[in-house]
Amino acid sequence: RKSSLASDAEGPRGLERIYPRHDCFVDRHIGPRDHDKQAMLQVLGVKSMEELIEKTVPADIRLNREMTVADPVPESEVHKRLRHIAGKNKVWRSYIGMGYYGTVTPNTILRNIFENPGWTTQYTPYQPEVAQGRLESLLNYQTMVTDLTAMDIANASLLDEATAAAEAMALCYRQNKRRRFYVDSYCHPQTIGLIQTRAEALGIDITVSDIVNMDFSDRNFSGMILQYPNMEGQVYNMELLQRVIADAHDNGTLVVFATDLLALTLMKPPGELEADIAVGSSQRFGVPLGYGGPHAAFFAVRDELKRLMPGRMVGVSRDSAGRDSYRLALQTREQHIRRDKATSNICTAQALLANMAAMYAVYHGPEGLKHIATRVHHGTLLLAEGLKRAGHHLQHDLVFDTLKVACGTGPADVLERAAQKEINLRVYNDGMLGVSLDETVEEHDLDDLLWVFGSESSAALLADKMDSLPQGSIMNSPFRRTSPYLQHKVFNSHRSETQLVRYMKQLENKDVSLVHSMIPLGSCTMKLNSTTQMMPCSWPEFSSLHPFVPEDQAAGYREMLRELEEDLCEITGYDSISFQPNSGAQGEYAGLRSIMAYLASKGEGHRSVCLIPTSAHGTNPASAQMAGMKVQPVEVSRDGRVSKEHLYKMAEKHKEHLACMMITYPSTNGVFEDDVREICDLIHSYGGQVYVDGANMNAQVGLCRPGDYGGDVSHLNLHKTFCIPHGGGGPGMGPIGVKKHLSPFLPSHPVVEVNTQSPFGVVSAAQFGSASILPISWAYIKLMGGRGLRHASEISILNANYMSKRLEGHYKTLYKGTNGFCAHEFILDTRVFKKTTGVEVADIAKRMQDYGFHAPTMSWPVSGTLMVEPTESEDREELDRFCDALIQIRQEIREIEEGRMDRRNNPLKMAPHTLACVTHSEWNRPYSREQAAFPLPFVQPDTKFWPSSGRTDDIYGDQNLVCTCPPIDQYAPPFIENGKVKSAV
Amino acid sequence: RKSSLASDAEGPRGLERIYPRHDCFVDRHIGPRDHDKQAMLQVLGVKSMEELIEKTVPADIRLNREMTVADPVPESEVHKRLRHIAGKNKVWRSYIGMGYYGTVTPNTILRNIFENPGWTTQYTPYQPEVAQGRLESLLNYQTMVTDLTAMDIANASLLDEATAAAEAMALCYRQNKRRRFYVDSYCHPQTIGLIQTRAEALGIDITVSDIVNMDFSDRNFSGMILQYPNMEGQVYNMELLQRVIADAHDNGTLVVFATDLLALTLMKPPGELEADIAVGSSQRFGVPLGYGGPHAAFFAVRDELKRLMPGRMVGVSRDSAGRDSYRLALQTREQHIRRDKATSNICTAQALLANMAAMYAVYHGPEGLKHIATRVHHGTLLLAEGLKRAGHHLQHDLVFDTLKVACGTGPADVLERAAQKEINLRVYNDGMLGVSLDETVEEHDLDDLLWVFGSESSAALLADKMDSLPQGSIMNSPFRRTSPYLQHKVFNSHRSETQLVRYMKQLENKDVSLVHSMIPLGSCTMKLNSTTQMMPCSWPEFSSLHPFVPEDQAAGYREMLRELEEDLCEITGYDSISFQPNSGAQGEYAGLRSIMAYLASKGEGHRSVCLIPTSAHGTNPASAQMAGMKVQPVEVSRDGRVSKEHLYKMAEKHKEHLACMMITYPSTNGVFEDDVREICDLIHSYGGQVYVDGANMNAQVGLCRPGDYGGDVSHLNLHKTFCIPHGGGGPGMGPIGVKKHLSPFLPSHPVVEVNTQSPFGVVSAAQFGSASILPISWAYIKLMGGRGLRHASEISILNANYMSKRLEGHYKTLYKGTNGFCAHEFILDTRVFKKTTGVEVADIAKRMQDYGFHAPTMSWPVSGTLMVEPTESEDREELDRFCDALIQIRQEIREIEEGRMDRRNNPLKMAPHTLACVTHSEWNRPYSREQAAFPLPFVQPDTKFWPSSGRTDDIYGDQNLVCTCPPIDQYAPPFIENGKVKSAV
Ligand SMILES: Cc1ncc(COP(=O)(O)O)c(C=O)c1O
Ligand SMILES: Cc1ncc(COP(=O)(O)O)c(C=O)c1O
Ligand SMILES: O=C([O-])O
Repeated sequence: RKSSLASDAEGPRGLERIYPRHDCFVDRHIGPRDHDKQAMLQVLGVKSMEELIEKTVPADIRLNREMTVADPVPESEVHKRLRHIAGKNKVWRSYIGMGYYGTVTPNTILRNIFENPGWTTQYTPYQPEVAQGRLESLLNYQTMVTDLTAMDIANASLLDEATAAAEAMALCYRQNKRRRFYVDSYCHPQTIGLIQTRAEALGIDITVSDIVNMDFSDRNFSGMILQYPNMEGQVYNMELLQRVIADAHDNGTLVVFATDLLALTLMKPPGELEADIAVGSSQRFGVPLGYGGPHAAFFAVRDELKRLMPGRMVGVSRDSAGRDSYRLALQTREQHIRRDKATSNICTAQALLANMAAMYAVYHGPEGLKHIATRVHHGTLLLAEGLKRAGHHLQHDLVFDTLKVACGTGPADVLERAAQKEINLRVYNDGMLGVSLDETVEEHDLDDLLWVFGSESSAALLADKMDSLPQGSIMNSPFRRTSPYLQHKVFNSHRSETQLVRYMKQLENKDVSLVHSMIPLGSCTMKLNSTTQMMPCSWPEFSSLHPFVPEDQAAGYREMLRELEEDLCEITGYDSISFQPNSGAQGEYAGLRSIMAYLASKGEGHRSVCLIPTSAHGTNPASAQMAGMKVQPVEVSRDGRVSKEHLYKMAEKHKEHLACMMITYPSTNGVFEDDVREICDLIHSYGGQVYVDGANMNAQVGLCRPGDYGGDVSHLNLHKTFCIPHGGGGPGMGPIGVKKHLSPFLPSHPVVEVNTQSPFGVVSAAQFGSASILPISWAYIKLMGGRGLRHASEISILNANYMSKRLEGHYKTLYKGTNGFCAHEFILDTRVFKKTTGVEVADIAKRMQDYGFHAPTMSWPVSGTLMVEPTESEDREELDRFCDALIQIRQEIREIEEGRMDRRNNPLKMAPHTLACVTHSEWNRPYSREQAAFPLPFVQPDTKFWPSSGRTDDIYGDQNLVCTCPPIDQYAPPFIENGKVKSAV
Repeated sequence: RKSSLASDAEGPRGLERIYPRHDCFVDRHIGPRDHDKQAMLQVLGVKSMEELIEKTVPADIRLNREMTVADPVPESEVHKRLRHIAGKNKVWRSYIGMGYYGTVTPNTILRNIFENPGWTTQYTPYQPEVAQGRLESLLNYQTMVTDLTAMDIANASLLDEATAAAEAMALCYRQNKRRRFYVDSYCHPQTIGLIQTRAEALGIDITVSDIVNMDFSDRNFSGMILQYPNMEGQVYNMELLQRVIADAHDNGTLVVFATDLLALTLMKPPGELEADIAVGSSQRFGVPLGYGGPHAAFFAVRDELKRLMPGRMVGVSRDSAGRDSYRLALQTREQHIRRDKATSNICTAQALLANMAAMYAVYHGPEGLKHIATRVHHGTLLLAEGLKRAGHHLQHDLVFDTLKVACGTGPADVLERAAQKEINLRVYNDGMLGVSLDETVEEHDLDDLLWVFGSESSAALLADKMDSLPQGSIMNSPFRRTSPYLQHKVFNSHRSETQLVRYMKQLENKDVSLVHSMIPLGSCTMKLNSTTQMMPCSWPEFSSLHPFVPEDQAAGYREMLRELEEDLCEITGYDSISFQPNSGAQGEYAGLRSIMAYLASKGEGHRSVCLIPTSAHGTNPASAQMAGMKVQPVEVSRDGRVSKEHLYKMAEKHKEHLACMMITYPSTNGVFEDDVREICDLIHSYGGQVYVDGANMNAQVGLCRPGDYGGDVSHLNLHKTFCIPHGGGGPGMGPIGVKKHLSPFLPSHPVVEVNTQSPFGVVSAAQFGSASILPISWAYIKLMGGRGLRHASEISILNANYMSKRLEGHYKTLYKGTNGFCAHEFILDTRVFKKTTGVEVADIAKRMQDYGFHAPTMSWPVSGTLMVEPTESEDREELDRFCDALIQIRQEIREIEEGRMDRRNNPLKMAPHTLACVTHSEWNRPYSREQAAFPLPFVQPDTKFWPSSGRTDDIYGDQNLVCTCPPIDQYAPPFIENGKVKSAV
């Protein structure tokens, strides 16, 4: 089975003839077979793929040449290649701390969540009825965070601790509109850097200060943030701390704690110290270091602040049958609704990692976590004892896991011995050294550390002399935690691996993912995330590196990044890439800030207007606002294209202040607009820059390049086009590509040197964002090769057009290109049914669940419509089944139109139909159980995927906001004594 | 959370106090928490675990000391330890052939089947209604085998090619009762060795001969076997082959082909050459080498022989609703029914590996497989060309993938260069060299091989000069295959990874496994198979070794085996272990043969009577019969114990000829018999040996040892007690432990030296059986440590007794020990209901499915009963739920007893209830849908596991035997044009 794509690349012609390769990944990645492609082209009335592309992609932007991306590496060889690169990373023991700690990922969580496509290929749970599993797990995460921080309410993760801190600053500002903010100078440097970066654009004035010196009396500080314990490991004096907090509150200043969940199992939690907001990272709850990510940050607030909180939040509501049902709460705060007035631009977050951390807590439970924390703490005290005896001076008295050491005889010897043992310590600018202990530290590690610091003692000897409640213990201090946490049953009933596996599987099995059926979410590119691409993420060479190791220990990462950068530049037409942004929205923000810095460098700092078409994704205006730009909407005309008339008017109107325009291409309306080059030229002619939102790269790779037709900068959602799985709402990666003139302005990092000259600042806690998932995109590109990548784009366009065609006569495709073709996605107009039948788009979306499908993107970019993006990975039969379902639903609507079915009581309004519903003794509907649950022959009882909740009531949930695990009385297991049992369901 | 078990072992006392470990695997492996254990002991009316054990395990056999198994290695460290050992294996390229070939396991199959507990923790599909997924996959396997071999019918796997060949020999004998058998001298040496071993005990006379010299004219040869292509790579001359086969058939001799599935995609299949039986290995269909296993062998026959075929076979029957339903067919041939008259002793086979091989064929399809085969073949021809040009002589003209080379200048240089390149070649005794190519060979491998053989050419240069249909091609020979294969839709519709993943998940989701709920199968020990134990099986250092590599390349394996042997000796009280047997039944056979060899060595070769209690597992008599012993049953008395009276009588009666007794301990009836030591002594006093069936080791580890109370030999089902997952019917490992006097007689191997002096012969194709799953058991023992292992035994006994107690008053536990306690399993007497209500044990078993549970072992060892073995890994709540289900079923029976429920139309007789059934519009039963499907509160619609087929009709299936995929007309996908769709279900 030799693909037509893999032809002469792999060797001399004779060998290719006699000994052709057989493992062509392109053929595994792409759904339709060659005969399907022919048949589908025929359905579209075109003769060839070339013709389809000619009629779809404007001639003046087509690439018209092979990309210079290397020929495909066979699937069976790509790991060999990557192992070679990975081998250049050195996996030392890192006791650097600074927000990143060694941790033991329970293997059962690694294998059954992180390495399991049933979990990784889920989408953000916007369709709660088929997402109750991960919603429950994220609720566990929120409960864990609120319990450990003693705050009232938490969200379902943010991108990293530093951005969470910056979001906290922004919340403080939103809350009281004051333009000054205090930052504890002992916050982690990346946190300080990121807050400063974000503040600058928002016009907030940051004062970095020792907390002792903070003065709130002018009542002009919106908030203050402190690190608890601080970045040198110190736990502040209780009196000082309480005084500062009281002082802040007295003066209307909000108090933010950046803190550590593990420490909080022993230490008085922020909530009990009157904190208003608590943020931090849950990384050390079983999430590998990964050279900086992905990890889930947490964000928790007092109840009064909940509606100002950024990010997604899972809430408990009820379903159509009155049962508890989980779903994303308070969506009205978010960018897709409020745009530049949203609480934040955060969209993709870190759901998968939040789930891992939550499951770690479920597995260990409160005693387990406390045990781990105590052990880490005791190890630290034990080491402290040894160091003191060896003649070193320790900077701080009360610490949890981190020591700052003034070495008796200078640090050089110590560092040399550390290198001998392959141990990384933190090296302070002042010459002192830092050590942070963690869960992975064993006796022999302690002994090695003692030796490194010149101690002649051993852990065992030292321990013999220590009290059971050792001197310096937090348990002996006013910081000792007395309040309970994680009392909920879920944290107290999965101690054996068998129990945990069953729990994880039970949750997994409630959720639709790509392992069940296509998820054609417009603008989300839910394509194959192949096992071969995923496997390297678990290799220790990638997963076990602390982000701040010396560069030579990350030589493999650097090489992979270089290769990936080169390929992404060729793919996009840009000149350099920053891998720092760890989501698309972060990329937008970084790109816009680079533009601002560039303009400022040219003395055009006054330019700040950002033109954004009204059809843009909500993160665009939200990011622009956060970047300090003034968002000006550009109208979209009836045919779905940017109104050139209005654009000219707006450009002219703002010509003095025009900074840039953000456009998405092909447009969010699913068409390749003919005049994109003209639009870019126009903006440039007015002195503005062009930000091309790269979310739709999947339609372009190998066909046209933003860098060619006028883009100055784009982000690339690697979690869309480049195969990072969506993880149920993250992780993702949003690196940005820029033209040469913007390169000097790409983000820097306060700890690790990155290649940039006049950086605007910092956008992520880690220098390369979520570095450890980049092997996925690297492998995708290597496996596909240049032509394979282009072919993927072609098929993504073919698949979309084929579906649009099959639905013709049943649904109207709202927008098409000049020659009548859509791009790689298309909008179905479902608004028409409202008037005639009362059927709304949500009814159709929920009804799709009864056919076993996840709905397309609902009401975006056009309210009341569905946007379908099949991707190239779906085969023709699956596309047909999906179309059949939509067509059958159209028939069901017709039944209502023609009066044969009730307007209220019909399969659409009652959808989705749960198992509980169709197996109930009572059935008094005007349609049959079979019609409800098995509406087409391919929906079969033995293979059907069932929604596990009836339609969720969003309004009820938002009005009665509950964002922690509900009480569990109802789960009490039945126990039969003497034949008495509770009655059945 | 420090377990009471892990105490002072891990370091000096001070450290243990200050810095206690927190990852105690024992606590993760064991279900009940400490407070549960206390409560459960209380329910049993005993004060402590010690008391329970004292009252359960006879005093005169108790170990009463700590085992000298090392202290537990923490879960987070065990991989480090094992990596160190694994690192001593050298992963060279092996072109040794001899039945083992490099292969590319598609990563998606590796991760989603081999590494997925949803597949690995399934049991043998004896309850077909909750096993349709793997039954379908095994049916695919059978279809693949019958298609490729062109035979009529195939089974669902045997243990390895060599045992399959021996089974073929036995089948020939069964068919025509002739006592001579011809073996092609060019069969693989391990095949010849194994056939000889098996033949000896059966009194069959083997003649090893060149096929040219075979003479059938005396009509006394039952059969002949030839290797196709043979072990030197040669494909015999067609005329010769046809003549020999015709000659054999003319004289009533059956013809067996040992063959290669990949070759058969290009070559005329055995069925078209009139073969009667075809056997071989499916290893090279994507199953890693694994130093010899596990791999699935296949066995296929002409239709007339099907009822004589050994092993399990999946057949198509129909369910209660008349729909196709898969299940194991012709069970009446098997040992659990026919005992010593069974077709074979094979029980655990290689289901998981058969599923992997089948899925490989599903993924590649007929063209893909043909492409791979052509490539392998062409690579071989290309290499042949290079070798000839370099002055070497090739022994054979027509070959598929293997060359036998007489080196121009002697082999020494070649071998030295091969070593330089880390390449293994086959070295023949006659000084010639062998090379077998495979799917993994790339251009650079060919170039390396050419260099190794002193060629100055390259693959590319050679290829340039070759015809597209190269000289020497099978496609140019009379052996060219012209018949199609794998035409079924399942082999032609899963070409993309997305499609394959969905197919694998769909099958997985139909099957109950340990990820759903407990599977308390008596005598099967379905305990936790932890991820940490499983992971190393995928490490290349274990999975990529050819079984016949030089010993120094397997130094890591040898070290692991030494450690495992040492621990298993300490655990069992034996002196040495043979790891060759790759199933329990294989262990029985090997143990009995060792006994026979020992007796013969003492001049007591006339002893051949084997006493076996009637309650024994069917494999015992079947193995004894195969070992050439005369099986004599010993009666079991009313209390479930071996009748000592009858035993004495039998021993006395057979005293001249007594070879041994086989006993299972604790007995298959679930009790620790008090007099086991007395029984062993008795047998010894009569000059016999004692074979203790180790299937029930899970009740004994750390408490008592077969080697102490009188066992001379035992097999250990590592796939029960030692955590190898059952894989849906294999793989397993059945190593035997023996006392010193039997050690010299342990099996040898014809290719690899193993440590034995007077071996009786060979029992598995590979020297250490399924070596690559041994890390699982190694890790289990390391993780648990001596005390942890003992505690597991204690809890397995506690759990069983707790269940038995909770069921008291509802069901009678058939047998108990002297103090009223059962062992780690117990039998529920369900025979009583037959008379009063017509309810049979199968009704209860099927009804359990409606409660979400897999039934206990049904009708074994006592017909009409259920045998429950919970294992230590199940927690108390799960035990309670299982008991609640049984108790509720008892209530349902009472309804019938008391006339409130119909005798025919009731939830038991109609069980299991499928989704199709309870969602059907029509419902006219005297009980509700809710009672049918949700009979207790813990059975909830959103989490319930559903049987995907109604009750299967075994009789219909056996009468209308169909063992290949059924035609697929009914699966035709619906396609809607102009609004026309087929009607709903
Ligand atoms: C067009 C567009 N832009 C930007 C984004 C934001 O990307 P992210 O979710 O990675 O922050 C999305 C996400 O769906 C999008 O569709
Ligand atoms: C008591 C007993 N002996 C022997 C065996 C045979 O073991 P295997 O299936 O591994 O061949 C079994 C299998 O269940 C068993 O229960
Ligand atoms: O596999 C068994 O037959 O127990």
